[in-house]
Amino acid sequence: MSQAAFARARANIALAKYWGKSDVALNLPAVPSISLTLDGLVTETTVRFREDLDADLVKLDGRVATAKEAARVVELLDRVRAAAKLGLRAEVESTNRFPTAAGLASSASGFAALAAAAAKAAGLRWGTKKLSAAARQSSASAARSLFGGFAKLPAGAPGQADLAAKPLYGPEHWDVRLVVAEAAKGPKKVGSTEGMERSRRTSPLYDAWVEKAPALTRRIQRALKDKDLDALGAAMEQSTYAFHACAMSASPGILYWQPATLAALRTVERLREKGTSVWATMDAGPHVKALCHAADAAKVRRALGRTEGVLKTMVAKPGAGIEVEAR
Amino acid sequence: MSQAAFARARANIALAKYWGKSDVALNLPAVPSISLTLDGLVTETTVRFREDLDADLVKLDGRVATAKEAARVVELLDRVRAAAKLGLRAEVESTNRFPTAAGLASSASGFAALAAAAAKAAGLRWGTKKLSAAARQSSASAARSLFGGFAKLPAGAPGQADLAAKPLYGPEHWDVRLVVAEAAKGPKKVGSTEGMERSRRTSPLYDAWVEKAPALTRRIQRALKDKDLDALGAAMEQSTYAFHACAMSASPGILYWQPATLAALRTVERLREKGTSVWATMDAGPHVKALCHAADAAKVRRALGRTEGVLKTMVAKPGAGIEVEAR
Repeated sequence: MSQAAFARARANIALAKYWGKSDVALNLPAVPSISLTLDGLVTETTVRFREDLDADLVKLDGRVATAKEAARVVELLDRVRAAAKLGLRAEVESTNRFPTAAGLASSASGFAALAAAAAKAAGLRWGTKKLSAAARQSSASAARSLFGGFAKLPAGAPGQADLAAKPLYGPEHWDVRLVVAEAAKGPKKVGSTEGMERSRRTSPLYDAWVEKAPALTRRIQRALKDKDLDALGAAMEQSTYAFHACAMSASPGILYWQPATLAALRTVERLREKGTSVWATMDAGPHVKALCHAADAAKVRRALGRTEGVLKTMVAKPGAGIEVEAR
Repeated sequence: MSQAAFARARANIALAKYWGKSDVALNLPAVPSISLTLDGLVTETTVRFREDLDADLVKLDGRVATAKEAARVVELLDRVRAAAKLGLRAEVESTNRFPTAAGLASSASGFAALAAAAAKAAGLRWGTKKLSAAARQSSASAARSLFGGFAKLPAGAPGQADLAAKPLYGPEHWDVRLVVAEAAKGPKKVGSTEGMERSRRTSPLYDAWVEKAPALTRRIQRALKDKDLDALGAAMEQSTYAFHACAMSASPGILYWQPATLAALRTVERLREKGTSVWATMDAGPHVKALCHAADAAKVRRALGRTEGVLKTMVAKPGAGIEVEAR
């Protein structure tokens, strides 16, 4: 049994949005989501179980992790150790090989790579589904990054411990592009976990979101099957606005947007008025991500790059699923 | 019987928001709303029924009204003529005496003044309640501008023809200020009537908004009674975000905001973090309106005036109700 392993995973963007948990302890999503795994947005992680360690050693991007960051890593390692009946502490080195800090959540690729590397290093023979369920317990969006191309994470019923994402289509299914426009620097004020909980407890619109999101996800899944970008884009925008609506109308309201967010949204709207099929989405942050056909990506990127307040742009295409090897 | 009358009415801002109709033909609101009538934001209207006219003559701010504007005026005149059994056509002159074009809807003050002047000129002895119901048929927010200070417009049940606003407190009840920050020039792309209909038909959150808005309105009414600005402000912001949420998550989404809207919202947030009790609201447009105590108004105005993208600011205080006289 090898005591070390390496994994490479890619970030993903939700086309049908996840917001809200049905079970906080088990980290189960209250609504189904559909994602696109992104080429070029890679996290590489090595896990080494070592006899000579008294505690887990966690390095992120070459620096020692903060206590809060390390705690989430150790929690996943503990679950892997329990499954493998392994007593050793681990050295974890994880690096985000992203071309820009464009506000794409690295927790998706990070926890996908960590789950795969840790399980392999611990000698567990977990398949992708099992790895997806393990990653999901740390970060729901990570469950989707195990799979390349397009994946779906169903909603979880409270108590359902083993929820995993499912592959829908490989990256070759549809040659779309995601153009990312960075709209602000710095971390957001309200983290997603806190934002979801506050939305659930205080937003007058939260229950309606949970009730209505599955229909939006079905529309998105159908449009994805049909490769109908206008149908998918319209439903993706609606899914985006509906989840931001829950966050905004929480008490106190959570507003992830910045002036440049609005400017970038206007740019996308103007491009569409001029005939380009391009649609916007935002995660729990200020950045705008525009979905378009490959042929339109350069034009969309130029327009977003020229938009007031936009700091940086980049383009991603459909990417591959998890890669793991023993070290 | 005098055949001419003059009326002066003031614009109002909704503290508890109105969005959505329970009966489009009768223009009945689906949710209750509470407003503050604003001093200094005055519309003055003269109506003269004349024997020598073949058609109604409508002048707004010194120019001849467009056909679309005139149609809404004529529709109200027709209802007044029917009630008074009067065959004469009218000359209408209406002027908004607003210090700036700060995007405060003039339809509230405009239709309040028009209803009062037309009824008086036609010899009808309508009280404020009857005038409020008449104004409401043209513009629901106008129903509230008949009353000074703070007024409430209940939700209307379909078919309920005579719904009127009710006074809650006079302008002397509470010495608050509304600081208006103009965030963009030009008319909005989607009018309120169209926006409400699209929200009702297509937003997955609309039904929840209609169901939950009354509780927000009750919180606002209680806070208004208690003169508790923090409680009122928090609920007012929630009411604002919840109605914008319905508009945004309609299909296609309706986004009334501009980059300067977000910048002004951040200014209000920062002021609050530094200890000033100030709360934001927006109507179906890009402008930010900040509610604060009289003592803080100058500080709030300075901060909003210095905010990137804000074109103009002004301050309004609680104003008086309708004034009418025969001419």
